[in-house]
Amino acid sequence: MTITITAFERSPDGGKGLARDTRVRWALEEAGLPYDVRLVSFQAMKEPTHMRVHPFGQIPTYEEGDLTLFESGAIILYIAENNPGLLPSDAHARARAIMWMFAAVNSVEPPIFDLTTAKIVEGDKPWAEQRIALVKDRIRQRLAQLSDRLGDAQWLDGEFSAGDLLMVSVLLRSRPSGILDEFPNLAAYVARGEARPAYKRAFAAQLAVNTAPLPTT
Amino acid sequence: MTITITAFERSPDGGKGLARDTRVRWALEEAGLPYDVRLVSFQAMKEPTHMRVHPFGQIPTYEEGDLTLFESGAIILYIAENNPGLLPSDAHARARAIMWMFAAVNSVEPPIFDLTTAKIVEGDKPWAEQRIALVKDRIRQRLAQLSDRLGDAQWLDGEFSAGDLLMVSVLLRSRPSGILDEFPNLAAYVARGEARPAYKRAFAAQLAVNTAPLPTT
Repeated sequence: MTITITAFERSPDGGKGLARDTRVRWALEEAGLPYDVRLVSFQAMKEPTHMRVHPFGQIPTYEEGDLTLFESGAIILYIAENNPGLLPSDAHARARAIMWMFAAVNSVEPPIFDLTTAKIVEGDKPWAEQRIALVKDRIRQRLAQLSDRLGDAQWLDGEFSAGDLLMVSVLLRSRPSGILDEFPNLAAYVARGEARPAYKRAFAAQLAVNTAPLPTT
Repeated sequence: MTITITAFERSPDGGKGLARDTRVRWALEEAGLPYDVRLVSFQAMKEPTHMRVHPFGQIPTYEEGDLTLFESGAIILYIAENNPGLLPSDAHARARAIMWMFAAVNSVEPPIFDLTTAKIVEGDKPWAEQRIALVKDRIRQRLAQLSDRLGDAQWLDGEFSAGDLLMVSVLLRSRPSGILDEFPNLAAYVARGEARPAYKRAFAAQLAVNTAPLPTT
């Protein structure tokens, strides 16, 4: 059964791998699954055809036969549950790996994403500069807690898991601001993720899309 | 094996059921599992004893024998996977129920939670009023999309699932602002959740905590 995901026709980051299709590509590469990609323009993303697949008009989505999923966390968990290598077999370790997946998207990503809102969406507001400083401090607070927990471990809980895949993907989004590099153990953790062959293939695939000429219409 | 969760000694909402322990209590009640509650003060929450259980110094946590979890979404999924009634048995329907869990915490809760930040954390800033209006519009945009998807269905995807439990819990947090009631089908959906006996027991349990006299120290 062919797996098809969606991705930006052109990512706002120009190919830095920070759009959410990269984490899904990474999970598919870790699982050794081939996949097709359907590119979606910003305009098409908000049209009924795509909104039927993704009610919030975003990417990525995952289609395989009559299964359609959205939400990168859910897609990665589905891949992890149905293929070896991304979740431990011990029931408790498995529960903790899934816990780190939720921690990534619910506790670590929101303040990081909020910086994009403060810079891009509210960048023209008179309060932008003052508020950006506040949001950066909130990111630092969360990353300091995560840094304390990680300590000098290689991964968050034993072997590499889908929890690390999602956490590394989320932390990558804090690198352009310089905040990730304020926490050397987190920066090294992210670098370990990026060094995985599956990540490299995923990154290269999204880069190829984002540096290819746009289709002429 | 005894299940112990943590909750606020006194919730900031004074017992409206909006703190994240309520959703875990609800899942435990749906599953028919007895549980103990360890109450944590705001001060104790940031101390090493609790930070070892929850690296971000929050509630709820879940302890059962040698398993310790944090993140309400992960706790609810663990309960749902190990007890009947909260996840469908069909593999695709199960994946979609988990998708709605991630959608609740990653796509719907962040703008709703941001309103609390705008009102409470940044309420004394000169930009507070203008920014609150912006954040409210973002909540409306997301809820409009969810409202379109739900339509006149009872639940998000067939039978009630952990996806509905988490989505209803998150939507409840948009009621104090009045925004939930701008979407009659979402308000009715939330009311269906609140009408479930398990929800009522969970709500009553957290209310009892939040209206009891504080321990004198």
